[in-house]
Amino acid sequence: MTETRAFQDYYPDEMSVCYGCGRLNSSGLHVKSYWKGDETICRFHPRPEHTAIAGFVYGGLIASVIDCHGTGSAAAAAYRAEGREMGSLPCLRFVTAHLAVDYLKPTPIDAALELRGTIKLVRSRKVVIEVEVWSKGELTARGEVTAVRVPESMIAPER
Amino acid sequence: MTETRAFQDYYPDEMSVCYGCGRLNSSGLHVKSYWKGDETICRFHPRPEHTAIAGFVYGGLIASVIDCHGTGSAAAAAYRAEGREMGSLPCLRFVTAHLAVDYLKPTPIDAALELRGTIKLVRSRKVVIEVEVWSKGELTARGEVTAVRVPESMIAPER
Repeated sequence: MTETRAFQDYYPDEMSVCYGCGRLNSSGLHVKSYWKGDETICRFHPRPEHTAIAGFVYGGLIASVIDCHGTGSAAAAAYRAEGREMGSLPCLRFVTAHLAVDYLKPTPIDAALELRGTIKLVRSRKVVIEVEVWSKGELTARGEVTAVRVPESMIAPER
Repeated sequence: MTETRAFQDYYPDEMSVCYGCGRLNSSGLHVKSYWKGDETICRFHPRPEHTAIAGFVYGGLIASVIDCHGTGSAAAAAYRAEGREMGSLPCLRFVTAHLAVDYLKPTPIDAALELRGTIKLVRSRKVVIEVEVWSKGELTARGEVTAVRVPESMIAPER
C-alpha cells in the first residue's frame, strides 16, 4: 500500500453513512480500499457471524465487500483519470448499477479476504471494475462492478 | 402466503447458521421465503443501519437478501420438482454459484422490501431463479441467482 488514507476516508460526511464502507456507520463493515500500483486492494476480516455453512464466509458478505471496493475503486479511478487529488472538489462518488459475482469455491472464515481490483473502463460517468477475492492464497470468488456517478447535487448541493 | 413455515425453517440445524437466513444466527438477517402460487416471495424490513446514502438501502444488503431468497427458492423448487415435502430426507440444500443484480433505482429504507422469485430452470443439481425487488410499489432492483446443490455429505453425513 502506498497510502494510509483509504479511498473511502475521502468521501464527504453525507456520503459516509454506507453500511459497507461508511466511516460514520458504527454498525457497518468499514471496507477500506487503496491503490497498489494500477490495482486497487482491500483487506477485510470477516466477523464470526458472517458465516454461510460453518467455517465458510457468507456469499452476501462477499458481494457486499466487492460492491464497496468496486465503488471506492471507481471514485479513485475517476480522480486519477482527471489527474486530480482524491477528495478534491467537485466530489466524484459512484454507486453500483450492476453487480455480478461468481463463487468459485468456499471461502474460509478464519482468514482475511484480500480483494484485488482491476479498472476495466473509465468514462466520465461510468467505471467498470473487476474484483478478485483471495483467501489463504486461493482465488475463491470473482466479481464485476459497473459503477455510475452520483449526481453532484445529491452529494453536496451547497458546494 | 399459503404457509406459515418458511423454506429456511426446514433447513437442518447444521445448515441454519447462515448470516443471511439462518434461524440459529442471532446476528443475522433472518430472510424468510414462501410460496405464493408458482412465485416465491419474501418480505424483509431493512434495519436503520442498512443505509447507502441517507434514506436509501445499501446495495450489498439487497444483494444479500436476493442471495438467500434465491437459494431458499432453489431448495423449495427442487423439492416441488421431486414431488416431495420440504424438509424430507435426503435434504436438498443449495448454495450460490453466480449472483447478478441490476440496481434500477434507489430503494427507500423506510419500507419493507418485497422480493418475488420466478423459477427459471430446475435441474437435479442446479436451479436458476430470477428475483425482483419491490419497494413502495416500485421495482427497484432485479437479480438472478444460479444455485447449485450442496453435496449431501456436507449437510448431514450420518443421515
